[in-house]
Amino acid sequence: MKKKEIEYQIRKKKSFLSIGLDSDINKIPDFLKNNEDPLFEFNKAIIDSTNKFCVSYKINSAFYECLGSRGWKSMEKTINYLNKNYPEIFTIADAKRGDIGNTSKMYADAFLKNMNFDSITVNPYMGSDSVKPFLEVDNKFIILLALTSNKSSKEIQLKKISESTNENFVFSEIINLSKNWGDDSNTMYVVGGTKPEFFKRIRKQIPKHFLLIPGLGAQGGDLNKICENAMNDEIGIIVNSSRSIIYASSGNQFDKAAAEAAEKVQNLMQQILK
Amino acid sequence: MKKKEIEYQIRKKKSFLSIGLDSDINKIPDFLKNNEDPLFEFNKAIIDSTNKFCVSYKINSAFYECLGSRGWKSMEKTINYLNKNYPEIFTIADAKRGDIGNTSKMYADAFLKNMNFDSITVNPYMGSDSVKPFLEVDNKFIILLALTSNKSSKEIQLKKISESTNENFVFSEIINLSKNWGDDSNTMYVVGGTKPEFFKRIRKQIPKHFLLIPGLGAQGGDLNKICENAMNDEIGIIVNSSRSIIYASSGNQFDKAAAEAAEKVQNLMQQILK
Repeated sequence: MKKKEIEYQIRKKKSFLSIGLDSDINKIPDFLKNNEDPLFEFNKAIIDSTNKFCVSYKINSAFYECLGSRGWKSMEKTINYLNKNYPEIFTIADAKRGDIGNTSKMYADAFLKNMNFDSITVNPYMGSDSVKPFLEVDNKFIILLALTSNKSSKEIQLKKISESTNENFVFSEIINLSKNWGDDSNTMYVVGGTKPEFFKRIRKQIPKHFLLIPGLGAQGGDLNKICENAMNDEIGIIVNSSRSIIYASSGNQFDKAAAEAAEKVQNLMQQILK
Repeated sequence: MKKKEIEYQIRKKKSFLSIGLDSDINKIPDFLKNNEDPLFEFNKAIIDSTNKFCVSYKINSAFYECLGSRGWKSMEKTINYLNKNYPEIFTIADAKRGDIGNTSKMYADAFLKNMNFDSITVNPYMGSDSVKPFLEVDNKFIILLALTSNKSSKEIQLKKISESTNENFVFSEIINLSKNWGDDSNTMYVVGGTKPEFFKRIRKQIPKHFLLIPGLGAQGGDLNKICENAMNDEIGIIVNSSRSIIYASSGNQFDKAAAEAAEKVQNLMQQILK
């Protein structure tokens, strides 16, 4: 998917919401567990009820891997269902991969070619040759971890680099380096919604790149603060919420409850987009 | 598996070799491709023929994920085969995972609990709360990326941190922090065999931890240089080789050829251990 298409969908749907399919077999409604593939049935219902209110789904691969090959199949069925029925949706494999070149190529094949995700989250710690194989697949995005939403992100990401001219943080140095590995047509960055005080600094470095902002909802990020500091002229942000939408209810009407939760966020986004 | 058991096996087998099962469907012998599960048949033959010469197998999850749920099943069958038939072998899930706490827990469940690997490689970029869920599984090791074997590792890992007292590299700072997350009974570090000039420095920081050293063989690491600089009194290193052993031949006798290649490395190791 191209950047222009994502921007078009954001304006059309008046939403820059991504819904995280962190679908946990222990948290989905009990009555679904009689199905042959409970995770897929859960995802299908959530997708059918919430897609009007979002522009993206983010599939967290850990939640599928912990069910083994059966879980991997649920992930494959979910991305196939999205690609077939909602091709306008920007799909994110939240897999945080990254390895030496020949191995990263295998991960790129797995997620971007075979499963045909539009994007994958990539850990930049191993440097450019570990990231470039992902950039070699056309019409896809890598979403590089920059400043993550968790508390401990400060331990390494917020250390300061001494050689850099401006005493950059480690994460800022990574942005500076990596913005030349690709460009804003194939690279986005993960910046935690729990760290709004860093957004302006980041926007100076990368005014045009999309930011994927997790941490809204269960993790405590504030939507207004995020938008004030992170948006650019083309919107330029996708804000993700997982648990507070998909687990809005554990009853029979879980999909309806998820839609209501998603619509609430979409309404706030619509206000902000005005 | 406990550290003492690994050390015992190293002395018994006179080997500190790990064989990397980077098993590529496009590189395994053609005649295996008629099997229902070619990757597993390949792995099984390699394991049966080489296990005398090594103390560890490292399964690179990317090579299985690129075949989808079918590949994941091959990985499950391989680790089950190892656990059942060769319980003395130290098994490594080379998966390079790491995410916010609730997600890392899912990865820990997937690899350390459900598949029962002895260890998993973990990317430290997100900090302690992303690593600790892996440490909570008893009798397992995390193997943290410190200084990786690829060329671009220098771009981030060898930048210098300004606040640290000794102008530490980023990777040294990560070692300093993380050696207190666990200890040498549950933590190892990845240090590339292509970077022997850094081993002495690393040994000063962590004299007792095991180092997992990839990069021997196809990537060009030199065994003598590695051992001279990285070994400690308890040996303290596991050296991995993948492609130059498992693809020693693509003919009918591929398993024999792999055993010969492994034995050659084991012989060198035996010399060094004297």
